[in-house]
Amino acid sequence: MDTQSAIVDLLSSLGQQVSLSKSDLDLHGQSESYFPPSPPDAVVYPETTAQVAEIVTICARHRVPVVAWGTGTSLEGQAQAIQGGVVVDFTRMNRVVDVAQADMTARVQPGVTREALNEELRATGLFFPVDPGANASLGGMASTRASGTTAVRYGTMRDNVLGLEAVTAAGEVIRTGTRARKSASGYDLTGLLVGAEGTLGLITELTLRLSGQPEAISAAVCAFETVTDAVETVIDTIQCGLPMARIELMDTDSVCAVNGYSDMQLPEKPHLLLEFHGTKAGVAEQAETFGDIATDHNGSGFDWATRPEARTALWTMRHNAYYAILAARPGARAIVTDICVPISKLAEAIEATRADLVDAGVPGPILGHVGDGNFHAILLVDTNDPTELSRAKAAADRMVERALALGGTATGEHGIGVGKLGYMTREHGAGWTMMGALKKALDPQDILNPGKLVPPRT
Amino acid sequence: MDTQSAIVDLLSSLGQQVSLSKSDLDLHGQSESYFPPSPPDAVVYPETTAQVAEIVTICARHRVPVVAWGTGTSLEGQAQAIQGGVVVDFTRMNRVVDVAQADMTARVQPGVTREALNEELRATGLFFPVDPGANASLGGMASTRASGTTAVRYGTMRDNVLGLEAVTAAGEVIRTGTRARKSASGYDLTGLLVGAEGTLGLITELTLRLSGQPEAISAAVCAFETVTDAVETVIDTIQCGLPMARIELMDTDSVCAVNGYSDMQLPEKPHLLLEFHGTKAGVAEQAETFGDIATDHNGSGFDWATRPEARTALWTMRHNAYYAILAARPGARAIVTDICVPISKLAEAIEATRADLVDAGVPGPILGHVGDGNFHAILLVDTNDPTELSRAKAAADRMVERALALGGTATGEHGIGVGKLGYMTREHGAGWTMMGALKKALDPQDILNPGKLVPPRT
Repeated sequence: MDTQSAIVDLLSSLGQQVSLSKSDLDLHGQSESYFPPSPPDAVVYPETTAQVAEIVTICARHRVPVVAWGTGTSLEGQAQAIQGGVVVDFTRMNRVVDVAQADMTARVQPGVTREALNEELRATGLFFPVDPGANASLGGMASTRASGTTAVRYGTMRDNVLGLEAVTAAGEVIRTGTRARKSASGYDLTGLLVGAEGTLGLITELTLRLSGQPEAISAAVCAFETVTDAVETVIDTIQCGLPMARIELMDTDSVCAVNGYSDMQLPEKPHLLLEFHGTKAGVAEQAETFGDIATDHNGSGFDWATRPEARTALWTMRHNAYYAILAARPGARAIVTDICVPISKLAEAIEATRADLVDAGVPGPILGHVGDGNFHAILLVDTNDPTELSRAKAAADRMVERALALGGTATGEHGIGVGKLGYMTREHGAGWTMMGALKKALDPQDILNPGKLVPPRT
Repeated sequence: MDTQSAIVDLLSSLGQQVSLSKSDLDLHGQSESYFPPSPPDAVVYPETTAQVAEIVTICARHRVPVVAWGTGTSLEGQAQAIQGGVVVDFTRMNRVVDVAQADMTARVQPGVTREALNEELRATGLFFPVDPGANASLGGMASTRASGTTAVRYGTMRDNVLGLEAVTAAGEVIRTGTRARKSASGYDLTGLLVGAEGTLGLITELTLRLSGQPEAISAAVCAFETVTDAVETVIDTIQCGLPMARIELMDTDSVCAVNGYSDMQLPEKPHLLLEFHGTKAGVAEQAETFGDIATDHNGSGFDWATRPEARTALWTMRHNAYYAILAARPGARAIVTDICVPISKLAEAIEATRADLVDAGVPGPILGHVGDGNFHAILLVDTNDPTELSRAKAAADRMVERALALGGTATGEHGIGVGKLGYMTREHGAGWTMMGALKKALDPQDILNPGKLVPPRT
């Protein structure tokens, strides 16, 4: 690795687009999580795919790590340059290249954020449904295989990326997928790059599948006596084919936190928050069918509304729940867990997590995308107290062990980065070795986001 | 390659499960298409994953090709042992391992056919929606990334396989995915094996996503003056978010063929055939909304029915359309094309194909899964007439060129096999080289279905 020569070449080739300022390096060494900072040696702001190819070519020549950066909102340290090297910040590649209305597709540069895209789509009758909490970049969302509250209806990034343009470890530009809605032509390279966290290539353009803005939307909220009642309601709802657009769980601790933070008066019980998309008659029918199912499972206070203000208040509360929970313990930092299990095991997984956290003395309100079997316990930790931090980490480990034992995964939507690397052997066995072989084939010098996702190069 | 030594080892290890009979070899040298027969050197009928691993280990030791075989219904010669070697026939691995009703998943062995699975699911209220024309095996459907008439609503095999067990080229058993509905953990190995046509591993078990049997189903049929009118109806229908379960196009030639074959009296015009799934009120609303849109585009004779007999008659006619078309020219064989384009280009692609086929003097009725932009021209060819065969092949080539020029793909659902290998460079460019690198990493000896899908090994 010859970082200084790479920087010389980058400066000569990209001039003002290369930043070596300490504040910039420090900023790009941060993450949203509790991982230690790891500033890169340089940050480069490309404006074109050709410049990205040039950056990677230079880094390849000098065997210097290249790490892609969108908005820096990933939760497992995916964008941290843990072996130093060059961060490629896609902020300036933030153009919606085109929107094909009849095809319901859009081509975007990787730095476009999901909110910016939806702003641009507003007048078209279309929208891009995937919504992780943060206003993340679409390149970053693809790289981490992000999802969020709407995945139960619209799928994750895996389902909503039709094709990609990417720069390989050799600095070559490839195009994957097409603008057609399906293809049986060869290996699914699009699917391979989605979720690869920048370890196989740098995404320089995305072709996204868009959805039609629904004619009508209704939102609903319902309280339950127990988490099990709420989860059984979800299972019955899915089984009878109700196409919920969102179905979110908040446990009692989460409800208490949002009541205080968002000035709500929800009963201090587990709640489901829902949204239905469809025709006017359709959403009314869906909401009423759901109400009947909830009543069968001791649901109470069921209420649904189609007024936009009521919906906005509900989902603002939900999207702020993370901050509400953080505010519930001033000074604490969060370890955000992310397990996903078969839905039949969801109540068991949540109840066991709850009991374990009580035993461990770690506060951990639970929120979940329960239609997918995915939930987060937000472990609130005083990171200055090493024994507390280690108790919390041990509880997070046990959550993952439990998820895997129940047939689930260590991460439903946050990805691996550095935070979940330790679970890969346990989850994938020989499959993890296969991932290492794929990485070696496509990035023989190990320059693309090294130290992430695959086994350490021996 | 030492085929005789491999056969000796297979006989010693698997005895009666190894067949060397000429009739068996000949049977497994056939395909559904016009490719020349290529009998393997042996056929093995494993009953367990361990036996599949043993077969691959033996073949790897002697560098002998291994080709997976489901029902032999693939259309591009995917299961043909074109370099000889051993065909692994999964007929005896035909057990539904379990059905998890609450999770809406099933684990099946690869030899289970889609109809057998749906028979087994009948009492559960669940079904497996992917329906290529043939009663294919689920292992084969995954390997070719199959789809069919319901993909517009339920997706393709890419969307309905949650996880796999597979035997690698080294004879190792790996498990990909989990039983959870989503995961952000590492490379999508499931997605990589789906559509890989047995070139990266042999699928020995699948975890499938199931869907709820809808409460109500309505089917509809509607005639149009032109293909463009029909396609514009489809575009408007999708844009307004109508969740059609099926939306199929038959052009005038196809309608004439099915009228003759299935004793129907459809007007000799392009038709759309539709199916809606939902609640009783929902399907009525969907059918009526569709009727309004069709009327705006000169649709006529719109009729919808919820009676099962009427629906069965309609879809039996559709599923028999291939045979109806074949019967329209006795003695002819079919070259079945399979392009898929962005839906805004669909009318243009169909009209250009129609004009081209008339010019070329090749009969070619057109059928399509138009909600996905995917259609087939069934070229009827006297294969004993070499000039006619070459005219038909040239027309099929032009169809693909047109699809690629319009931003589409050479194959929406039939895959590559040997039939579409010639289009890979044109469609994928440097991506095809990347596919070759992946193949080399996972199958360094090139024993898994060699000669298919990836560039020839140099």
